[in-house]
Amino acid sequence: MREEVNVTIREAIPEDAQELLAVTKIIGAETDFLVMDEEGMALEAYELAFQLDRLYESPNNVLFVAFVDEKMVGVASIRAESKFRMAHIGEVGLSILQEYWGIGLGSLLMDELILWSEESQIIRRLELTVQQRNQRAVHLYEKFGFQTEGILQRGARLDDGQFLDVQLMSLMID
Amino acid sequence: MREEVNVTIREAIPEDAQELLAVTKIIGAETDFLVMDEEGMALEAYELAFQLDRLYESPNNVLFVAFVDEKMVGVASIRAESKFRMAHIGEVGLSILQEYWGIGLGSLLMDELILWSEESQIIRRLELTVQQRNQRAVHLYEKFGFQTEGILQRGARLDDGQFLDVQLMSLMID
Repeated sequence: MREEVNVTIREAIPEDAQELLAVTKIIGAETDFLVMDEEGMALEAYELAFQLDRLYESPNNVLFVAFVDEKMVGVASIRAESKFRMAHIGEVGLSILQEYWGIGLGSLLMDELILWSEESQIIRRLELTVQQRNQRAVHLYEKFGFQTEGILQRGARLDDGQFLDVQLMSLMID
Repeated sequence: MREEVNVTIREAIPEDAQELLAVTKIIGAETDFLVMDEEGMALEAYELAFQLDRLYESPNNVLFVAFVDEKMVGVASIRAESKFRMAHIGEVGLSILQEYWGIGLGSLLMDELILWSEESQIIRRLELTVQQRNQRAVHLYEKFGFQTEGILQRGARLDDGQFLDVQLMSLMID
């Protein structure tokens, strides 16, 4: 890390709703690496609080939030379907405020996600998609053992209409 | 076709809701090629009717139903997100009552989906996942130009817990 910072990572709770919406809105606006745009999560705070409450009880869904000196700066999630035929597949999401890139938060959050998955007893496959040009993220995922299963042609699009290739990566959890 | 049958394919309308639920429930129970299980769509008819109404107006979502002699026997769908960064990606779903396999309905439905996508002016990529052991379906998709982009390890699971490889296929629409 660049300097001494006080980092906390924990599961999101309903009281985080307001700040979570604000942070994801900023992240969505400052990066075009994500599907999420400047609308962020596009939810009302009370709606999100309700969802966070249910999320907290879910055995195969989770949302972690990262704080630096008590300011929320990043989120990491695993989403899975409830149907048994797909319930073992966790879709990974990870995003961090640009100002806080490069200080190791991505690795800390990914660590939590993998640990949580291993303890879940349900998740047996983690998967994610990442724009191929975002090699910084690809390297992070590779560091944690993710392997590329395929390249999705036109898997994403920039706001100017340009199509991008997207890498599909996965990690088996045993 | 095996014999003379009277096939009709059209977009689903709210009045189809009841029959659609019944058919997808049977399909879900008789095949384990699909994510959908014996619960089928797991929606109430009035809820589905409402969704069909909205679907009908959507520029990048569609649901076709196939009838043989006025009996509903198959469904085919394209689902896409509303966010611009992903709105060009249509996810294909196609399922047919087992009794009506092998008479060319899959090809007829896929024809409709591709034609509709080309006319949509929005869909620029069709994608689907298919269990690798379901080579009959893979060949159908290949016949229409779909190409395999990757193999998803543990991309699906049977009701007995056995993991299956899943093929990710796509077709560019121009």
